[in-house]
Amino acid sequence: MKLTILGCYSATPRTFTNPTSQVLEINNHIFLIDCGEGTQVALRRNKVKFSRIKHIFISHLHGDHFFGLIGLVSTFRLLGRDTPLHIYGPQGIKEAITLQLKLSNSWTDFPLHFHELTHTGPEIIFEDEKVTVQTIPLQHRVYCNGFLFREKPGERQLVLSKVQNYDIDIAYYRSIKKGKDVVLENGEVIPNSELTLDPRPVKSYAFCSDTRYDEAKIEQIKEVTVLYHESTFLESHKHLCAKTGHSSAIEAATIAQKANVGTLILGHYSTRYENIEIFKDEANTVFDHVEVADDGKVFEF
Amino acid sequence: MKLTILGCYSATPRTFTNPTSQVLEINNHIFLIDCGEGTQVALRRNKVKFSRIKHIFISHLHGDHFFGLIGLVSTFRLLGRDTPLHIYGPQGIKEAITLQLKLSNSWTDFPLHFHELTHTGPEIIFEDEKVTVQTIPLQHRVYCNGFLFREKPGERQLVLSKVQNYDIDIAYYRSIKKGKDVVLENGEVIPNSELTLDPRPVKSYAFCSDTRYDEAKIEQIKEVTVLYHESTFLESHKHLCAKTGHSSAIEAATIAQKANVGTLILGHYSTRYENIEIFKDEANTVFDHVEVADDGKVFEF
Repeated sequence: MKLTILGCYSATPRTFTNPTSQVLEINNHIFLIDCGEGTQVALRRNKVKFSRIKHIFISHLHGDHFFGLIGLVSTFRLLGRDTPLHIYGPQGIKEAITLQLKLSNSWTDFPLHFHELTHTGPEIIFEDEKVTVQTIPLQHRVYCNGFLFREKPGERQLVLSKVQNYDIDIAYYRSIKKGKDVVLENGEVIPNSELTLDPRPVKSYAFCSDTRYDEAKIEQIKEVTVLYHESTFLESHKHLCAKTGHSSAIEAATIAQKANVGTLILGHYSTRYENIEIFKDEANTVFDHVEVADDGKVFEF
Repeated sequence: MKLTILGCYSATPRTFTNPTSQVLEINNHIFLIDCGEGTQVALRRNKVKFSRIKHIFISHLHGDHFFGLIGLVSTFRLLGRDTPLHIYGPQGIKEAITLQLKLSNSWTDFPLHFHELTHTGPEIIFEDEKVTVQTIPLQHRVYCNGFLFREKPGERQLVLSKVQNYDIDIAYYRSIKKGKDVVLENGEVIPNSELTLDPRPVKSYAFCSDTRYDEAKIEQIKEVTVLYHESTFLESHKHLCAKTGHSSAIEAATIAQKANVGTLILGHYSTRYENIEIFKDEANTVFDHVEVADDGKVFEF
């Protein structure tokens, strides 16, 4: 599981910082999450192959999470894309994008599928044999979802030495990995548990930006491998959290601690701060495993 | 008259090149012309004060001229702007911007005036005591206007030595500059022509992007101080001009030569070319006074 931060600052793009966008690689999928202005340039800078992006998830329709989408869709068109693109986001996203495509007389040649979100509870919005993506309802100033990406459990892991001990033919390996017992030629039954180990633990990633402090989501994100949680403010400005619908570093860490996640990544910093390491310092007073996102940073888990 | 090129490449923004946007300073006005994605960052990089921009002119609604506008408007709002902003552009521009402001629940606190253009002939769209701005109808794949910025003639220039010779009181200087003759105390009339020189020549700037080769505009832009004319293609790709509604460097130079302009600035280069100096070489075969635009370049006239 690999996470590339294209942008992780709030509000407006600046010369050296980008608004929210990130790329999650999980089980051979490349998921683009949020798409602030300048995302297409950040994708180029971080050498993400445009053609591998098939699913884009937009948390909410504030500009710093969304204004780069129309440009990216248009560039896909100019590059001659023909594979389908799926866009998941709040109701209204389809009208905003299609209106601009219409006005520029530039309808895409590739299939463009919008999946407009309106539910206020968690909802599975993508699923295949390897991964599920579920919305995480967030509390912000406008309708807003986080996204929970979770691998599906893989097959059981074959213990090769054991299987070879019993001289089991390779033709049975597939069914053993699926959990089947084996009946030897002499009628002896070898229980699956003797031949395999549990599947490797599934990895999961919860993206939560933007949101005020809200414990309602804790149950849903319990024990995820990685939680990205916005931390717009430091303690010095925590009085702004309620009004703006954002969280402080300590609030993000409190969610991480209560949900017992593996690692917390902080981001969505207010551009008023020069030094983002202080976010980590403050979060560490509550939770140990804290990383700070920064534009261009890559996390592998 | 000062022109700052924020971006001058066609199609899509890239790591080191920006789509079309430029800032024209003329008679204390700061006019923003076109606004491709990333324009707000380019404005910061070129240290243009956001608050001085009061008028934005959009040639057409293709993304590389327009997709940065919503982000800039939103940033004005976030910066607490309260002065009015005037946006001039093709019909539809108001719906595209206001829909996105509505979806993000971020209506501006400052007055936002849209001036939607539909005329197919030249039209004066801005005028004050110092400057006029007129549309230049262009031939592109969608409805598109260039813009002609022209100073109004200033006052006549006082020849101080002459005025002092006649011992004329300073109280009369203003009326002399406006062209009035002076009657001395002894009744003698001093004709204005003896006391003043003609006003300094007015400067003018014609912005023409995007357009196929079209001589119809020549009369309108005759003898402008500076013509910016798109030159998307070199001779090697001139067969693409008609289909895409663009011009070659030689076509741009031909317009400049026939309109007898002071200086031609080339831009809107296709991103297929590595070396933009070749545009100048080709244009120079037809017209002498050629400059090549490039991102961050400043021209003073």
